[in-house]
Parts: sequence; structure tokens; C-alpha cells
Amino acid sequence: MFNVANVKSTLIDFDLVSGLSKGKEPIRRNLSKMKGIFYDRDAFDAEVRKDDRLVYEFFDMGVPETSGDVAYGTSITYPGKIGDEFHMTKGHFHTVLDTAEVYYCLRGHGLMMMENPEGEVEVQELVAGKAVYVPGRYAHRSINVSANEPLITFFAFPGHAGHDYGTIETKGFRKLVVERDGKPTLIDNPRWQS
Amino acid sequence: MFNVANVKSTLIDFDLVSGLSKGKEPIRRNLSKMKGIFYDRDAFDAEVRKDDRLVYEFFDMGVPETSGDVAYGTSITYPGKIGDEFHMTKGHFHTVLDTAEVYYCLRGHGLMMMENPEGEVEVQELVAGKAVYVPGRYAHRSINVSANEPLITFFAFPGHAGHDYGTIETKGFRKLVVERDGKPTLIDNPRWQS
Repeated sequence: MFNVANVKSTLIDFDLVSGLSKGKEPIRRNLSKMKGIFYDRDAFDAEVRKDDRLVYEFFDMGVPETSGDVAYGTSITYPGKIGDEFHMTKGHFHTVLDTAEVYYCLRGHGLMMMENPEGEVEVQELVAGKAVYVPGRYAHRSINVSANEPLITFFAFPGHAGHDYGTIETKGFRKLVVERDGKPTLIDNPRWQS
Repeated sequence: MFNVANVKSTLIDFDLVSGLSKGKEPIRRNLSKMKGIFYDRDAFDAEVRKDDRLVYEFFDMGVPETSGDVAYGTSITYPGKIGDEFHMTKGHFHTVLDTAEVYYCLRGHGLMMMENPEGEVEVQELVAGKAVYVPGRYAHRSINVSANEPLITFFAFPGHAGHDYGTIETKGFRKLVVERDGKPTLIDNPRWQS
């Protein structure tokens, strides 16, 4: 409608139903890229052999890594389980530890698992129309607890935050969410390493 | 599902259809609070007398004003016109000028008007499922160009950004959007002050 050359602003589409974009490729995490993340290692190995499926995908818009910028995009975690543990993201701290992140749920049913270095754990429940504010210093992971619907969120965090995946890959989260008696249930992570 | 006492994270609802929240009151801008913003002063006075309606509302979640935090919420601009100029927000620079903001459109049809201190103007068109990234240094204003539907966006910006409304209230934006031949049309602001 109002085309201007050399614009500095960015316009991009994120479909409100699929979470995907026609204008940008997401970063994809298939199951085989998540070795060591799910607690049931036998179930993991069996599932990878059977169906190395897409567990989640998300966008990196490549905004400048400054505190004046805001990294943003959608995250889509598909339904499924590894053993009795729900599909989820790897989860991470921010490299600049004391930086927050907001997730606005567009579709689905999930949990935001949060944990700070002192071991304090918080879990918030996401359904379409709910936003969770993850405070600074909390590692965070999205968990899809729906049987059949993707968990889709729109996220935003400070441009300079960075991602520290290694701490979680090495130690894990203290708590996991598994299905027990047909319901999402919080348990101690038997593989957690202090 | 997983209640924990003294949580540091925040959960809040923003309805995907209305943009409103059961958990928080928005900040409301009725027409009478927008004196001097629309270019047709006679039409403005007449409309205020006739119907001092709600033009837009938005949320201030009160996050800490630090660069590690992210201010977020929804913004709802209702359809309507003052003379031939579409309903819009007052618009503002950020006090920390070089801080960006992202707007993800959930519903409606609008324009994001942007202008930097050097006078460069950008306009991006918003429909549901489009996100616009307003780069640092750009004043920005949401304009609803739909005849009957609210323009609803989810926004996020750095916690330390702050708001400078005064510059726009005094000088205005260089460009305005009015309806001409039934279409949104960009014109020079006859009241713009250098």
C-alpha cells in the first residue's frame, strides 16, 4: 500500500493457526537432535529409530544483539511423548542471565517450566490467550501437554540476552512433566545432576 | 495445575478476539484525551461533543524498567474516523531513543506509521498474522483503517525504553493517513511543525 525503498522496519508473517511463516525458514529440532534431553533413554532410542520426527521449531529473526533490540518470533512444539514424557523444547538459560522473556500463547495447551540457578522451580500453564512472563535468571522450557494440538507461542526477549543451552544439556531441569493417570504430572528428574 | 507460592513469573490473559484481560485494567484513551492529535480540529471538537468515545486502550504490565526486562501487552485501537482521518494512537518516541518495538497483529487491519528524527518515514501494513519490527529511533503510531473491526496487536519493547509522547504532541508526525476515494491515503500533515 505504501511501498518505500530501503526500509529499516521489518514486516513478516507468522500464521496464527500453524505458527509458520511464508517469509522465513524456522530452526527445526528433530528428535535425533535432542539426545540426552528426555529422561527415558530407551524410549528415546526406540522413537528415534521409528520416527525421527520434528519435535519443535522456532524463528530467529536475526535482530541486532543489543539491549535496544527485541528478538521475537513464534515457537511451535508438536504433540507427542517419549515414553511418558511430553514433547518439549530443550530449554535454556540466557547467556546474560538476568534477562527476561515473554511468551504469548496463540494455540494449544502447554506448560512453561522455569528454574533458576538456586533451584527454585516455577511452572505456569499456557492456553491460547495466556501470556507468561519468565523473569530474568530463570531457565525455561515449553512443554506441550495436548494429545493432538501444537503448542504455539509468540515470544520476545532482549536482543543481547543470548542462549546458554549447555547448562541444561549437561545438568537437566530439576523437574520433569510426565503423563500419569492420563494427566500431566510434575516429578523429580531422576537424571538431574547437581 | 502446579500452584507454587510466591512465584516470580507472571501469568496473564489477553483475549485473542477482544484483546482485553480479565486480570488487568488497560489504560484507556478516550477522544477527549487526544486534543491536538487529529488534524481536523473542527471535526475533533464536534466528535468530542457528540461522542467522547474510546479510541484505543493498551496494557502497562509494570515490568521493571531495566534493559533485562521486556514490557509487553496488547493494544486495541477501535474503528472510526475524525473527519477523514482514521482512529489512531497518539504515537511516541521511546525516551531511550534507540530502542525497538515489535507488534504482532492478532486481528484487524491497520498501519504502523514510523518516523525518525531525521524525517525518514516508513509505513507498514498490518493484518492478522503479520508482525512489524519498529527499529530503534523511530516514533510509531498504530492506525486502524478498518471500517468495523478493532486493530489488535501484541507488543513488546525493552523495559528501559520509556515513552516520549511530548515530541509528537508538539510537532506531530510528518505524514497522516486519511480516507480518500474510500481508500487509506498517505498525505503530508498540514499541521506538522519542524
